[in-house]
Amino acid sequence: MTTAAAHDAVTLSLAEVEALTRAALLACGVDPLNEPAITASVVAAEAEGIHSHGLARLPTYCEHARVGKIDGKARPVLDSPRPGLLRVDARCGFAHPAIDFGLPALCDAAKTQGIAALAITNSYNCGVVGYHVERIAAQGFLALGFVNAPASIAPMGGTRPVFGTNPIALAVPRAGREPLVLDQSSSVVAKSEIVVHQQRGEPIPLGWALDNDGNPTTDPDAALAGGTMVPAGGYKGAGLALIVELFAAWLTGANLSIDASSFADNLGGSPRTGQFFIAIDSGATAGPDATARLEHLFGAILEQEGARLPGERRIKAKQRTAAQGVTIAAALLQRLRSYAA
Amino acid sequence: MTTAAAHDAVTLSLAEVEALTRAALLACGVDPLNEPAITASVVAAEAEGIHSHGLARLPTYCEHARVGKIDGKARPVLDSPRPGLLRVDARCGFAHPAIDFGLPALCDAAKTQGIAALAITNSYNCGVVGYHVERIAAQGFLALGFVNAPASIAPMGGTRPVFGTNPIALAVPRAGREPLVLDQSSSVVAKSEIVVHQQRGEPIPLGWALDNDGNPTTDPDAALAGGTMVPAGGYKGAGLALIVELFAAWLTGANLSIDASSFADNLGGSPRTGQFFIAIDSGATAGPDATARLEHLFGAILEQEGARLPGERRIKAKQRTAAQGVTIAAALLQRLRSYAA
Repeated sequence: MTTAAAHDAVTLSLAEVEALTRAALLACGVDPLNEPAITASVVAAEAEGIHSHGLARLPTYCEHARVGKIDGKARPVLDSPRPGLLRVDARCGFAHPAIDFGLPALCDAAKTQGIAALAITNSYNCGVVGYHVERIAAQGFLALGFVNAPASIAPMGGTRPVFGTNPIALAVPRAGREPLVLDQSSSVVAKSEIVVHQQRGEPIPLGWALDNDGNPTTDPDAALAGGTMVPAGGYKGAGLALIVELFAAWLTGANLSIDASSFADNLGGSPRTGQFFIAIDSGATAGPDATARLEHLFGAILEQEGARLPGERRIKAKQRTAAQGVTIAAALLQRLRSYAA
Repeated sequence: MTTAAAHDAVTLSLAEVEALTRAALLACGVDPLNEPAITASVVAAEAEGIHSHGLARLPTYCEHARVGKIDGKARPVLDSPRPGLLRVDARCGFAHPAIDFGLPALCDAAKTQGIAALAITNSYNCGVVGYHVERIAAQGFLALGFVNAPASIAPMGGTRPVFGTNPIALAVPRAGREPLVLDQSSSVVAKSEIVVHQQRGEPIPLGWALDNDGNPTTDPDAALAGGTMVPAGGYKGAGLALIVELFAAWLTGANLSIDASSFADNLGGSPRTGQFFIAIDSGATAGPDATARLEHLFGAILEQEGARLPGERRIKAKQRTAAQGVTIAAALLQRLRSYAA
């Protein structure tokens, strides 16, 4: 660990990120069987430069475990109601151990059935959705993930929030390199972007959020207090949010976004949101030249000046982090150490 | 059939639409075993007010069957490479008979496996995607559909088309009423909207399309000759188009959008595009109160002034068409009669 030139920034290695995360979670009462799944996701987020889902999120995880909004000791329960369907009840515990518990069974089922799905219910914020689908693709499957979150997007024509920012994520295996991962929320920007501007006391660009009358706003407070997130592509973003809502929340038996408590504060009991993953063994239908066809598609993108594939920034961040470590605010480090103490 | 007040418009009943469509397809060499699936989709599109995929599309279907771009006599072949995966080879014939051939097997597999998928390869324009997923939902399944089309959307950061307007569609069964159907392209508007403006000699609104340098254009000719369709929500629409491309084209072994010939002209042989459908038996995971939870979600939308559910316009059009029939240009009727002769 090195203290950076500025007094308020410190640089950690990924090993230090891991040790700190583990210590903080365990000290807040998270079961040693559950902790590794959460820690691994925090380390992966920091490695890929997605700080909002890395150490910056950890105080909330710790707080929720400490006050009991999330049951850090809950052990997920897996069953398979049908040959192609797996279900994990997270039992109001963390999402990560529940997902990790279901993934091997999902991949086994996809191998034999050709297509299989994993429904996670009574769950919580699962961090970066792309992280989960990437791990399914690393096992050789085309993967799709749907995740719901507390309501913040209004339906087509409405002004009050009904859908979460509801991300969708896709991952596809590539020969000889990491899977391609696409991970995007249904809103123009992730909600954490608004929070960052609020914390800095800065206005947000027009087009990100609406106030509680449905009017465009540059005020992050108006956006977060009764306002809504603008869906990407107008009504089409709201349409995508509805698709994600049906898969992640309705189909899993989880709380709908309108009924989920906040991922941020300590109120309202467990959010009990849901995740839904589909894994497909592409070998059965994509044909013998599937690998060449996939690279033919990606080649048609990469040959264009300025064009890029989804996930390229994360891959570059990974290389940078491996060489330079992770820089965070000293105040955050202090806070995390106090949880770990 | 009644001639409307204006000399150039005629009104047809749905029975007349059906008879005319059937006669035109059969006269152009479409096999009597294939014709009913196509005719039913044309009638359904006209019934729901989606004229671009109804009689307005029929001359192209007829032309393609007549010149052999599409093999109107091809009989689809079904196999099941895995318990949860069905595959239909449309054999360069029409999409509709291929999809209809696979749907019963898809629903059977979804019932026993919990989730199943149908991959259609060597296919063609399938009309309204929502029409197909609605029929899966009418059998009691949550349905998702992906369809690719000749390339017209540029990738993130690029200027040359790589993805089709690649629609995604969802349908979910509702108790005591028609399924909810959501059907949206990855572009701001469907390509047929540009064609309509071109035919009328009218400019298109800024934001619909880009010219071949990637600049916004109001000229429909510039949009259609080497230009691209603007993805809905910017790079997020391009991301959705990529997801659809991987499912509909890559996973099915069909032509990628960059390799597909036009759906409009007679050149380039069969487009050999693809469709991919997922059906899920929601009863296994959505819980005993699934119906109430679904209506709770829809209620939170409908209670908002001005908000509406996807598909409401189509449902209203259906009532209007049943009462008033379908009005088309007399020139189109004349053209269709010449195919039928």
